Amino acid sequence: MAVWGERLAGVRGVLLDISGVLVDSCAGGGVPIPGSVEAVARLKQSQLKVRFCTNETQKSLGKLVGLLQQLGFDISEKEVTSPGPAACQILKERGLRPHLLIHDEIRSEFDKIDTSNPNCVVIADAGDYFSYKNMNKAFQVLMELENPVLISLGKGRYYKATSGLMLDVGAYVKALEYACGVEAEVVGKPSPEFFQNALQVMGVEAHQAVMIGDDIVGDIGGAQRCGMRALQVRTGKFSPQC
Amino acid sequence: MAVWGERLAGVRGVLLDISGVLVDSCAGGGVPIPGSVEAVARLKQSQLKVRFCTNETQKSLGKLVGLLQQLGFDISEKEVTSPGPAACQILKERGLRPHLLIHDEIRSEFDKIDTSNPNCVVIADAGDYFSYKNMNKAFQVLMELENPVLISLGKGRYYKATSGLMLDVGAYVKALEYACGVEAEVVGKPSPEFFQNALQVMGVEAHQAVMIGDDIVGDIGGAQRCGMRALQVRTGKFSPQC
Repeated sequence: MAVWGERLAGVRGVLLDISGVLVDSCAGGGVPIPGSVEAVARLKQSQLKVRFCTNETQKSLGKLVGLLQQLGFDISEKEVTSPGPAACQILKERGLRPHLLIHDEIRSEFDKIDTSNPNCVVIADAGDYFSYKNMNKAFQVLMELENPVLISLGKGRYYKATSGLMLDVGAYVKALEYACGVEAEVVGKPSPEFFQNALQVMGVEAHQAVMIGDDIVGDIGGAQRCGMRALQVRTGKFSPQC
Repeated sequence: MAVWGERLAGVRGVLLDISGVLVDSCAGGGVPIPGSVEAVARLKQSQLKVRFCTNETQKSLGKLVGLLQQLGFDISEKEVTSPGPAACQILKERGLRPHLLIHDEIRSEFDKIDTSNPNCVVIADAGDYFSYKNMNKAFQVLMELENPVLISLGKGRYYKATSGLMLDVGAYVKALEYACGVEAEVVGKPSPEFFQNALQVMGVEAHQAVMIGDDIVGDIGGAQRCGMRALQVRTGKFSPQC
C-alpha cells in the first residue's frame, strides 16, 4: 500500500475509460465489469474529482450514459468527455463540412453540422456500417479533394466485447490513410488536446491526474505523454503481450 | 522514335498488366481501353514474347480470360500470371490452411486447399465481401494464432473502374496489419517472386523484359526493383500526381 501511496501522491483527479474498464460492450449495450459500479461510487464519495473519458462512437452520449445509469453507475452526461461533441466544435471552428462515415446511432450528434458539398471526411467506429460501399464512398470523397482532410474519432485497434475482440475505427482509418495517401487527425484518445480538454473541465493539472484504462496506446501512452499518470486495468482488451 | 529504340534496346519480352491497361473494369466485366485489342494483336505478331501479369482477384482466371476473349483479346489462361494459383502453391509448400477473405468468384481457385482449422489468413480483393463481419472474422482468426500469418493477394491502393476509383485490397491489408500488429506477405505485384515467376515462364531475363502498367508502385516500381524496364500508361488509375 505504501507503494501505491507514493505512486498516487498529489493526485486530485481521476479520469476513467468506460469500455473495458467499467463495462464490456455487447450488441445490446454492455455488462458491468465486476466491482466497477462500486468503484465508481467510492471514487465519487472521495475527495477526488472524477471524469469519464471515452472514445465511444457507436452510441450517442445520451444513450451511453442512459445505459450506464441502468447498469447502476452514478454518471451524468456532463461528466463525460467523448469525441462526437469535440469533433463538432473543430468542424465549426474550421468551416469543415464532413462526409460522415459513422454509426447511425451517433448521427444525431452532428445534426447541427452542415454536411452539404463535403470538404472533409469524419470517420468513427461505424461497426456494421463499415461496408465496402460506405468505405469506398469516403475514399472517393477524399480523392476528389485538393487538400483531403480525414478526421478520425479515436484510432483504437480493437476493443473487447462480450462476444470477443472487435475491430475498432483505427483499422479503417489506416485503410483510408493508405489508399488516399493522407494522415488522419485524431479527435479522442490519445490526442493530447482531448485529454487536456477533460483536465480543464475538471480543473485539475496533468500532474495531479491519473488515467485508468485498458488500452496501452490510447489510454496509457496518451495520458503519459500529456504528463498524467496512468494505470492499466487487467480487464477489457488487456493482454500481457501488448 | 530513336529515343524509344534506345530505351527498349534488347527487349525480348513484354509483360502486360490487364486492369487499367487493356480494360477498365466494371461490375459486369470490363470495357476495352481504345487501341488495346489491336496493341496486343500487334505485340503477338512481333518477335516479342508476351505475357499478362495481373493482380486480378475478383474474377477467377478462367472467367477473366473468357471475358477478355469476348472483348476481342488474343489471350489464353496459360499466358497469364495471377495471384490465386501462386498463393495456392505457397500454401501447399508451407502446410498453411487459410481462412479465406476473398471474393466468392475466386473461391473455386482454392478448392484443393485444406481450409479446416486455419493457421493463416489469405486476403484478396473481396469487394463487397469486405463487410465488417467478414473483416472482423479474419481479424479474430489472426489474433488467435500464436504466429499470425497474413498473405495478401496484391497490395494495391485502388483501381479504376468505369464507375470511378475503387478501393483495392491494399487498404484492407493495412487495416488488418494495424489491428493485429502483423506484416502481410504479398503474393502478386510488386512481389519480386511474382515477377520472376512470370519471367521464368517466358524464358526471358529481367534485363530483357519491359513491364507495362498503370500502377506506379505495383507495376512500375515492382518491375524496376527486379531489374526490368517499365512503362507507365496514361490510362486506368494513372494520374500526373502519383
